[in-house]
Amino acid sequence: MTNTEIKWIKSLVQKKNRDDEKVFLVEGEKMADELRQSGFAIRKIVATKPLPFTIPRLSPDYVSAKTMQQLSLLKTPTPVLAVVEQPVHPPFPAIDRDELLLALDNVQDPGNVGTIIRTADWFGIRHIVCSPDTADCYSPKVVQATMGAIFRVNIYRAALPVFLRQAQLHTIIYGTFLDGENLYKKKLTAGGVIVIGNEGNGISPDVAAEVSSRLLIPSFPEGSARSESLNAAVSAAIVCAAFRRGIRD
Amino acid sequence: MTNTEIKWIKSLVQKKNRDDEKVFLVEGEKMADELRQSGFAIRKIVATKPLPFTIPRLSPDYVSAKTMQQLSLLKTPTPVLAVVEQPVHPPFPAIDRDELLLALDNVQDPGNVGTIIRTADWFGIRHIVCSPDTADCYSPKVVQATMGAIFRVNIYRAALPVFLRQAQLHTIIYGTFLDGENLYKKKLTAGGVIVIGNEGNGISPDVAAEVSSRLLIPSFPEGSARSESLNAAVSAAIVCAAFRRGIRD
Repeated sequence: MTNTEIKWIKSLVQKKNRDDEKVFLVEGEKMADELRQSGFAIRKIVATKPLPFTIPRLSPDYVSAKTMQQLSLLKTPTPVLAVVEQPVHPPFPAIDRDELLLALDNVQDPGNVGTIIRTADWFGIRHIVCSPDTADCYSPKVVQATMGAIFRVNIYRAALPVFLRQAQLHTIIYGTFLDGENLYKKKLTAGGVIVIGNEGNGISPDVAAEVSSRLLIPSFPEGSARSESLNAAVSAAIVCAAFRRGIRD
Repeated sequence: MTNTEIKWIKSLVQKKNRDDEKVFLVEGEKMADELRQSGFAIRKIVATKPLPFTIPRLSPDYVSAKTMQQLSLLKTPTPVLAVVEQPVHPPFPAIDRDELLLALDNVQDPGNVGTIIRTADWFGIRHIVCSPDTADCYSPKVVQATMGAIFRVNIYRAALPVFLRQAQLHTIIYGTFLDGENLYKKKLTAGGVIVIGNEGNGISPDVAAEVSSRLLIPSFPEGSARSESLNAAVSAAIVCAAFRRGIRD
């Protein structure tokens, strides 16, 4: 690899450069294996040793452990790093009344965003729409936290009020609020859009105005919680689990 | 504040020093307010400005923003930092058949441990037993992630096989496994110990041997998940929610 290539890969830690180049970074053997099976276009693979799989029409650039250390964003670099093209989607997903979607409203913590993508994948949710101020889904921390789910869930970036006004015509918009109704006492539909709010401030007023069904995850004993709220990824997971359980019952 | 005191506070970033001194660090106005209401013994309060509340028999040491920056472990230091005594508990919690407890088996990520403590508090779980290899509950990252729940949930550190063998005499030991039984098809008891496993390896064999009821969080559609697992804090939350819902139904 040339120095220019090394510099280029290192520049991709910044969102602006990732967006200009329409790529993102993937690290780790397990992630690379998931990538290989994903159909995502791979721009470059860098490895410190031969990989246990091959990728059609692409040979890895072999580098020393020292060079990998320069490139890697992990504390303990792995033997493989890939530069992958960001997938191109239409601005919004098509809305099917029976499909469950997520919308992230200014979710800031990359660990939370990655964990929500991973949870969505577990629960068969195929589309996530992120507000423009939500953490970049292609940042290295988000990608790692998805544990490969980033290759299976479609990510959109759109102004949520605009998206939700359109989605409303076809489906129900759910959101969690501290003054919402007990999630378990509501009839949950098979499909809908679940809005996940910001870690500190919850769902923003502009977005809340588009929510048609306000849910509360009840604390135990009900109304007793001294904690003010749950972590954003945790609330998302509990709500997704309740929707999917609802379909089964 | 003297240089010796500054050095002492800075030394508390290390577990060994925290354990020798039996203290931990708390940062932020909201956390300090929760601390004040908690009954935890406060060794020292450092502040850059007068606090909106008073603490009996303890006046803050006022420092410059520059000194606070030296002391703080946060990217954006807050106006207040406290050195707090670690509470002293018996080695194990007393087991009541109707009480729900958590046991953490080598949970490594401080964000996960903190989020699990926060979730436990929301669901009225008062006791968490951590294996000796679980991340230190008094590390600054864990404490911040609990959002104050660290002051309301009792944390124990014990060899889980020993604790679980004793708990077994009084209650049921639950754990999640990829080959467990659908959580929603089991009759969940009001009380029990829920074991949460390590992020990569799940529940260790020694601990698994003590689990009497093996649960699975079903993916959707069932058996379809291409993701191998959920995040540890997410699984813990979904299972806790299911137990608490079970009591209500």
